[in-house]
Amino acid sequence: MAERNPTKPEADGRLRVVIESVTPRVDGGRFPAKRVEGENVVVEADCFADGHDVLRARLLLRAEDDKQWREAEMTALGNDRWRGSFVAGPPGRYRFAVCAWVDHFESWRNELVRREDPEDIRIAALVGADLIRGTAGRASGADRKRLEDWSAVLRAKAPADSLKAAALDEALAAVAARYPDRSLTTCTAEMPLEIDRTLAAFGAWYELFPRSASTAPGRHGTFKDVEKRLPYVAKLGFDVLYLPPIHPIGREKRKGRNNTLVTKPGDVGSPWAIGSAEGGHLAVHPDLGTPADFRRLVAKAKEHGIEIALDIAYQCAPDHPWVKEHPAWFRSRPDGTVQYAENPPKKYQDIYPFDFESKDWRALWEALKGVIDFWIGEGVRIFRVDNPHTKSFAFWGWMIPEVKRSHPEVIFLAEAFTRPRVMHRLAKLGFSQSYTYFTWRNTRAELTEYFTELSRGPGRDYFRPNVWPNTPDILPESLQYGGRAMAVSRVVLASTLAASYGIYGPAFELMDNRARVPGAEEYLDSEKYELRHWDLKRPESLGPIIAMLNRIRRENPALHGNGSLRFLPTDNEQVLCYSKSTADGSNQVVVAVNLDPHNPHTCWIDLDLEALGLEPGRAFQMHDLLTGARYLWNGPRNFLRLDPAHSPAHIFLVRRHVHREQDFDYFL
Amino acid sequence: MAERNPTKPEADGRLRVVIESVTPRVDGGRFPAKRVEGENVVVEADCFADGHDVLRARLLLRAEDDKQWREAEMTALGNDRWRGSFVAGPPGRYRFAVCAWVDHFESWRNELVRREDPEDIRIAALVGADLIRGTAGRASGADRKRLEDWSAVLRAKAPADSLKAAALDEALAAVAARYPDRSLTTCTAEMPLEIDRTLAAFGAWYELFPRSASTAPGRHGTFKDVEKRLPYVAKLGFDVLYLPPIHPIGREKRKGRNNTLVTKPGDVGSPWAIGSAEGGHLAVHPDLGTPADFRRLVAKAKEHGIEIALDIAYQCAPDHPWVKEHPAWFRSRPDGTVQYAENPPKKYQDIYPFDFESKDWRALWEALKGVIDFWIGEGVRIFRVDNPHTKSFAFWGWMIPEVKRSHPEVIFLAEAFTRPRVMHRLAKLGFSQSYTYFTWRNTRAELTEYFTELSRGPGRDYFRPNVWPNTPDILPESLQYGGRAMAVSRVVLASTLAASYGIYGPAFELMDNRARVPGAEEYLDSEKYELRHWDLKRPESLGPIIAMLNRIRRENPALHGNGSLRFLPTDNEQVLCYSKSTADGSNQVVVAVNLDPHNPHTCWIDLDLEALGLEPGRAFQMHDLLTGARYLWNGPRNFLRLDPAHSPAHIFLVRRHVHREQDFDYFL
Repeated sequence: MAERNPTKPEADGRLRVVIESVTPRVDGGRFPAKRVEGENVVVEADCFADGHDVLRARLLLRAEDDKQWREAEMTALGNDRWRGSFVAGPPGRYRFAVCAWVDHFESWRNELVRREDPEDIRIAALVGADLIRGTAGRASGADRKRLEDWSAVLRAKAPADSLKAAALDEALAAVAARYPDRSLTTCTAEMPLEIDRTLAAFGAWYELFPRSASTAPGRHGTFKDVEKRLPYVAKLGFDVLYLPPIHPIGREKRKGRNNTLVTKPGDVGSPWAIGSAEGGHLAVHPDLGTPADFRRLVAKAKEHGIEIALDIAYQCAPDHPWVKEHPAWFRSRPDGTVQYAENPPKKYQDIYPFDFESKDWRALWEALKGVIDFWIGEGVRIFRVDNPHTKSFAFWGWMIPEVKRSHPEVIFLAEAFTRPRVMHRLAKLGFSQSYTYFTWRNTRAELTEYFTELSRGPGRDYFRPNVWPNTPDILPESLQYGGRAMAVSRVVLASTLAASYGIYGPAFELMDNRARVPGAEEYLDSEKYELRHWDLKRPESLGPIIAMLNRIRRENPALHGNGSLRFLPTDNEQVLCYSKSTADGSNQVVVAVNLDPHNPHTCWIDLDLEALGLEPGRAFQMHDLLTGARYLWNGPRNFLRLDPAHSPAHIFLVRRHVHREQDFDYFL
Repeated sequence: MAERNPTKPEADGRLRVVIESVTPRVDGGRFPAKRVEGENVVVEADCFADGHDVLRARLLLRAEDDKQWREAEMTALGNDRWRGSFVAGPPGRYRFAVCAWVDHFESWRNELVRREDPEDIRIAALVGADLIRGTAGRASGADRKRLEDWSAVLRAKAPADSLKAAALDEALAAVAARYPDRSLTTCTAEMPLEIDRTLAAFGAWYELFPRSASTAPGRHGTFKDVEKRLPYVAKLGFDVLYLPPIHPIGREKRKGRNNTLVTKPGDVGSPWAIGSAEGGHLAVHPDLGTPADFRRLVAKAKEHGIEIALDIAYQCAPDHPWVKEHPAWFRSRPDGTVQYAENPPKKYQDIYPFDFESKDWRALWEALKGVIDFWIGEGVRIFRVDNPHTKSFAFWGWMIPEVKRSHPEVIFLAEAFTRPRVMHRLAKLGFSQSYTYFTWRNTRAELTEYFTELSRGPGRDYFRPNVWPNTPDILPESLQYGGRAMAVSRVVLASTLAASYGIYGPAFELMDNRARVPGAEEYLDSEKYELRHWDLKRPESLGPIIAMLNRIRRENPALHGNGSLRFLPTDNEQVLCYSKSTADGSNQVVVAVNLDPHNPHTCWIDLDLEALGLEPGRAFQMHDLLTGARYLWNGPRNFLRLDPAHSPAHIFLVRRHVHREQDFDYFL
C-alpha cells in the first residue's frame, strides 16, 4: 500500500496512521476496478495507528480530469477495517483515495469518559480547552463563537463533575467534529476506478449475419433487410444486435463453403477476411448497402431499444489496401511474400496478421485506433473484438483508455477463448466484457466451480463475463446431441447465471445442430462462408422462451449483477440450483435446472431461509416465472421435479409472506 | 504488477510480454519478503504474450548495494506460470526481478517441427537462417563460427527433409540458446528480499531476570551470576538468553512488590521503568555490574553457543536524564507536568512515553536508533522490543532497515500482543520475529486454525512467529490449573509447532503456577517488581524434558521451518496431530499431543502415506523421540493412546523401510 513513504525520515515522520489493503483494487491499483453508473461503490481499507488513539477516515473521490475531491466519512467495522461508499456518477475514469488521521479531539473525549480522579478530570478539561481553542481557529462565524465559549467553560474553575459534563456535551462535540485537525493525515495513493454505463455489465446480445437476413433464399442480405429484422430481435427482448464484420471481403485466397481452399463462383468468403479493392476497415461491403444505409440501421435499431455492436477484427485479407500501403505493418517472408496466419501445419492464407513488433508500430497503433474512432463517428458505441489475445497487450492498454477518454460510453467485448491469465489481462487492460468458458461447462460441478470463480474470484472487480451457448465458431456437443431440452437449459443457464449473455441466431433459436463433421464443434454450411436462409416462423423456434427469459431478466434486478450468485445444495447431481438477489434483498430469484436433457429428475433442495429473509415456520410462495405456477413452500427443504419434456427449468421469484392475512393480495 | 508502463505509446510499445503475480511479494513489493541464508528461494511469476510464440524468462538477483545482477533461467510450470530459484546468500537486503521475452528462435523451431509442406519448410529454413545469423552476431569465437556455418547450411539449396533435419539440430540449438535476442525484454519492477541469518527463523529462547540469578536468596543477582547460569541454559539447549532491561531503574513513582503504588525500602522496581540519576538506555544498572561485566557475559555466552538478547523498551522513568534534557520528546500537561502513560482510569505514573508527534521527532528518532547502535557496539545482535505497537510505525520502518544496512545480522523480536493488522504491519516494517497469540490458543480447533494461518496465510513471507507458553507478564490459565501435564504439552506444542519459541524461566520449568489474584493472568510475587530465588535442582523441574525437546529440534531439520506444517485428522478432539517435513522429504516428524491434562485419550489418526513417501502395504517405523519407543505401523490409519500421567505427547520420527531385508539395520 502506498501511503507516503515512511521509510525515509525526510518524509513526514510524524504521520502515525497506516492505511493498507484498500478494496476494490486491481493489481495494487495498477488497473481500475470497474463499476457501473448509479451503483453504490463500497470502498474498504485497514486504517490503524500506534497506541489506542481514535482515528477518523475519509473516502475521497474525483473524476480523473477534475481537481476537486469529494469526501465521504468512513466508518469503523471493527478489527481496524473501515468502510465508506458513494453512488457512482456518469461513465468515466475516476480516482479514489483513503485518508485517515489521529483524531485527538475524539481521543480526548473517549478517555475523559473513563476518567474518575477529580484532579485528573481538571487537567483533562484544560487539555480539552486547548484542543477546542485550536478547533475554533479552523471554524468561523457562529461555530467559532460556540467553540470559543466551550473552551472558556473548560478553563473555568469548577467542580470536576460539572467540568466533565460540560466536556462531554454531544451537541458541541458534533460542531467540533466539523473542523478536524488534519495536519498529520495519511493518504493512500490514488486508485483508479472505471464507471461504465449499465449495458457494460447487464445486457442480452443477439448475433446475426446481415448477408443472411434477406427474406428471399439465395439473395445477399442488406442493412435494409436487417432493419426489417429489428422488430423480431426487439420482440425477443435483446439489447444488443451484434454484426460480424461488415467490410469488403478479400478476393485473394478467399475460402469456399465449409472452409474449403477452393472457391466456386458466387462464394461470398469469410467476413473476417477483411479488405479488398473496395476498401478496408473503414468501408462497408457494397453488397450490404451504403454507409448511409448503415447509419440508418443504427438509428432505426435505437428506436427499437437496440444498439448495434460491430465486430473489430484487426487483420487483413491479402488484397486489403493497407497491405500495399503499409508493408512495414506485416511480417515479410524471405521469398518476398507477406506472412499469413498459421499454426503449423494449419495455414490461413486468406488472413495477414499485423506485426506488433513492427518498427512502424506507432503508425499502426494510430491506424487501428482510427478504425474505432471512425465507427464511433458512424454512431457505433459497442465493439466486439475478434481474437484480441493475438494482438499485443500494450496496444489494448493504450487504445481502449484513449478511446474511452473521449467516449466513456463505449463498450468493448473481448472474444478471447484462450488461457485464463491472458483473458484476465485483457479485462484488466480495459475490455468491458469477456467471452467465457461457459460454452464448455456442462456438469453441475463444472458450472458451480466456474461461476463461483466468475462471481467471487479475483476477477470480480474487473472481469465481466458475457456467456454464450453458441457462436458461429462453436456448435458445442451439448447442442449437437441434447435436443430442445438442452437448448432450453443452456439458454436458461446463460441468461440467469450471468448478467450479460448472448446467442448466435437464428441458428440458436432454430436449433441448427448439424456439425460439419462428427466430433467437430463447427456448424455444417456455416454462415461464415456462405449465405443462409432461416425460416423464423418455424413452430419449434425457441423464440418465445427466449423472449420470456429476457423479460424475466429485465423485470428482476436480482439478475442484473453477478456478485450475489450463490449455489444451493441439491441431492441430485443432475439438478443445478442457485439464487441471486439485490443488495437490499427486495428481489430474490431461485433457479433450478435439470442438466440431463433425456430424463426427468427429482431432488430435494436446501434453501437458506435466513439469507432469503424468510421467517422459519411461515409459508412463502415460489412463483415460477417461466410457467406462471405458484407453489407454497414451508421450511428450508423442498422437493422438485423437472421433466425435460415439459420444462427443464424453474425460475422462481421468491414472494415473501406479508402481514395482511385478510387481503386477497396475500403475497407481494 | 510493474512491467514498464504499457499504457503510454511513448513507452516501448513493441514489448509483448506481460509479467504478473510475482511471488514472494509483500504488499506489491512495498515490503521485502524474508528468507534465511542458505535457503532455496523460489520465485514464481505469470509470464505470457499475445499469440502462441515461445517465451523465455529469467530470474534476476542482486544484493541491494551491488549493481551486477545474477541471472537464473526460469522454467514453465504450465498455465503461464514460471518458476526460478537461487540459494540465498549472506544476510542483507537483496532485490530480484523477473524478465521475459519472446524467443523467436525457439518459436521458429517449435513451428518447424510441425511443418509438413516442402515449400513451407524451405521458406522456414530461410527464416531460420536469418535468425541464426542474428544470433551469431551476438556470439564470438567458436560459437560464432558454428552458428554462421549453421545459417549457411539452412540457406543452401537442399531437399526439404534434410533442411528440416539440419534446422532441428539439438546441439546447435543449445549453442544458439546461449545468445538470445533480448532487445524486446519486459522486466518487472525490482522486488525487495531480506535475507536473515538462520537464528532469525529458527531458535529456542530462554528469558531470565539477572537480578534473580544470585545463588544466595535475597542477594541482588549480577551479570557474574548470569555467567554462572550459562551452563544450565546451555544444557537445556537454548540458543538465545534474553534479559529484561538491564538499565538503571527510576526512583520516582517506583512501583512496589506486586505492582503496588507504594514502595518499601529495598524494593527494586520494574526494570521497564528505565532511567535514573545513574543513566538511561545506554547505562547498566550498578547492582548488576559494570559495562565490562556485561561485555564479558556476552562473550562467555558465545562460548556456550548462546547469544544474549537485550530488551529494548522505548520509555522513560520520570528521573531518566532525557526527561530534563529533551522535554520536547514528551507530551507536557497544562499543569506543567509530563504526561505519564495511562489507559483511563489506569495510570502508569512511573512511565513517560515518547511523543512521536513531537516537532523534534528527527532528534528523537536518532536518539532511539542510537540506543541500538550503542548495544551493537557492546556485542549485542538480538533485540526483543517491548510494546512496539505503542511507538510510531514510521519510526520502525526507518530505524530497523537503517540498522540492518550496516548490521544485517541483527534480529528484532516484536513484543506486540495486539490486533492482527498492527502485528502484521510491524513484521512488514522489519521486525524479524513476532510474539503471537499462542499463549491463549488451547483447543484443537484454535491451534489448528491459528497455526494454519501462521504457516500458510498471507503473513508466511514476512511474519515469523516466536511462540511462548508464558512470559513475565502472562501466566495463562492453562498453566495455573493444568499441572505438569499441561506444562509439558504446552512446551511440546511451542517447540514443534513453531520454528522459534521461548520460555520465561525458571518460572516455566519449575512450574510456578501462582496467580496474583484468581482470574488474573499475572504471576504472584512477580520478578518484575522484586527479586526471586529459584531452586533449579528441584526434582520435578521440566529441565530434562526441555533439554530433550531442544535436542530433537536441532537434530530434525523438519522442525527448522514453519511452511511444511500440516494437521492430520484424528477422531478425538482432545488429540492434536500434525506433521512437518523438509522440502526433500528426507526428514519427517509426526507429533501427537493430548490436550487434556487430566485424562488419558485414545484416537485413530490418519496419515497421508503418499505425502510421507511411504509405500502402501509396507510397514514403517514410528520412532518416538521422547521415549525412544519404536512402533511398527502399517497403512494410513493407526491407533494411539496418550496418558498425561506418563507423557502427553509423542514426537515420532518417521523411519522409512529400506530394501535391505537381510540387514540388521532394517530402518534408516
